[in-house]
Amino acid sequence: MISELTVSTGNRTELIDITGLIQDVVRESEVSSGLCYVFVPHTTAGLTLNENWDPAVRDDAIRTFDELVPQSPAFRHAEGNSSAHIKAMLLGFSAVIPIESGNLMTGTWQGVFLGEFDGPRRRKVIVKIVAD
Amino acid sequence: MISELTVSTGNRTELIDITGLIQDVVRESEVSSGLCYVFVPHTTAGLTLNENWDPAVRDDAIRTFDELVPQSPAFRHAEGNSSAHIKAMLLGFSAVIPIESGNLMTGTWQGVFLGEFDGPRRRKVIVKIVAD
Amino acid sequence: MISELTVSTGNRTELIDITGLIQDVVRESEVSSGLCYVFVPHTTAGLTLNENWDPAVRDDAIRTFDELVPQSPAFRHAEGNSSAHIKAMLLGFSAVIPIESGNLMTGTWQGVFLGEFDGPRRRKVIVKIVAD
Repeated sequence: MISELTVSTGNRTELIDITGLIQDVVRESEVSSGLCYVFVPHTTAGLTLNENWDPAVRDDAIRTFDELVPQSPAFRHAEGNSSAHIKAMLLGFSAVIPIESGNLMTGTWQGVFLGEFDGPRRRKVIVKIVAD
Repeated sequence: MISELTVSTGNRTELIDITGLIQDVVRESEVSSGLCYVFVPHTTAGLTLNENWDPAVRDDAIRTFDELVPQSPAFRHAEGNSSAHIKAMLLGFSAVIPIESGNLMTGTWQGVFLGEFDGPRRRKVIVKIVAD
Repeated sequence: MISELTVSTGNRTELIDITGLIQDVVRESEVSSGLCYVFVPHTTAGLTLNENWDPAVRDDAIRTFDELVPQSPAFRHAEGNSSAHIKAMLLGFSAVIPIESGNLMTGTWQGVFLGEFDGPRRRKVIVKIVAD
């Protein structure tokens, strides 16, 4: 079973909690035990897992990514968004999460985040569920 | 087949070689050909693959991660461990390794490491083996 | 179905577009719907997805990685290539890409790249295709 989600981002860079959207797909699949694959088909947006309780974590993280890879006059990519491409590479583009008893086996504090680095845009997230 | 390992970490930040633990799970599964999924359900610990021959590699790596993302007074997350969350994001939280002839297809020098960034703690590592 | 590709790199650090090689494996597998696992069994080379249209993106990215983790006299690993190990960890070592209608579900601008950080060398890339 494969689903394509659409997420509208609102800022140039941000981490957006998409845990609920992924959980909905898992629930609809009615898969009790299996694997959940999440894939972002973009080059300036990425995917990560992290704390979704205190929003300050995502704010601290996105500011750190912006500071680690600032846009630079030395960059040659004419579109002017090389820093967005590089930050997305650092974050990564996919996750594989085990499913047991119909639920993602994520930790208590762990959510799934889309990392936007060149927004605002409409982004796609592909979710594939495979039963054991 | 799914297993939950427990790893006790001993320092605030460190890379811990868990290759042997993962290989034990592969052996017990008696799967000859398939895939091994490793997943860390935490937000201040991560997972990576790298050289497990010379311990200096992991020491150099963890010191570099600490230097790339030092704890900062600008961080707003009240728990005071945002740098740990961010270093874990940079490392990642999962690996998928092919299995052939009952063995992980890791390279000669390649081991599996739990990355602790806010220890010492007891950490969980989920290992799922799927046969072809 | 599992394939082992060989890629010869030409520089000390570079991102090499291996999208066509991966697509060839998908095509030969004749799998219409499934998953493509790509795994790099090395410790100083990694794997990422990103734009493969403008070569300036990969050049800007590799230079940024070199600047983020320069070789340091403080590194203790006697082989002298700790920066290569660490850059590979930041990039990651694997990707899982859904397959639909016989094609990788990568985005329009998204290619698969081998990240060489201690070349030139001959590198292996393992590709495993699993049908639904």
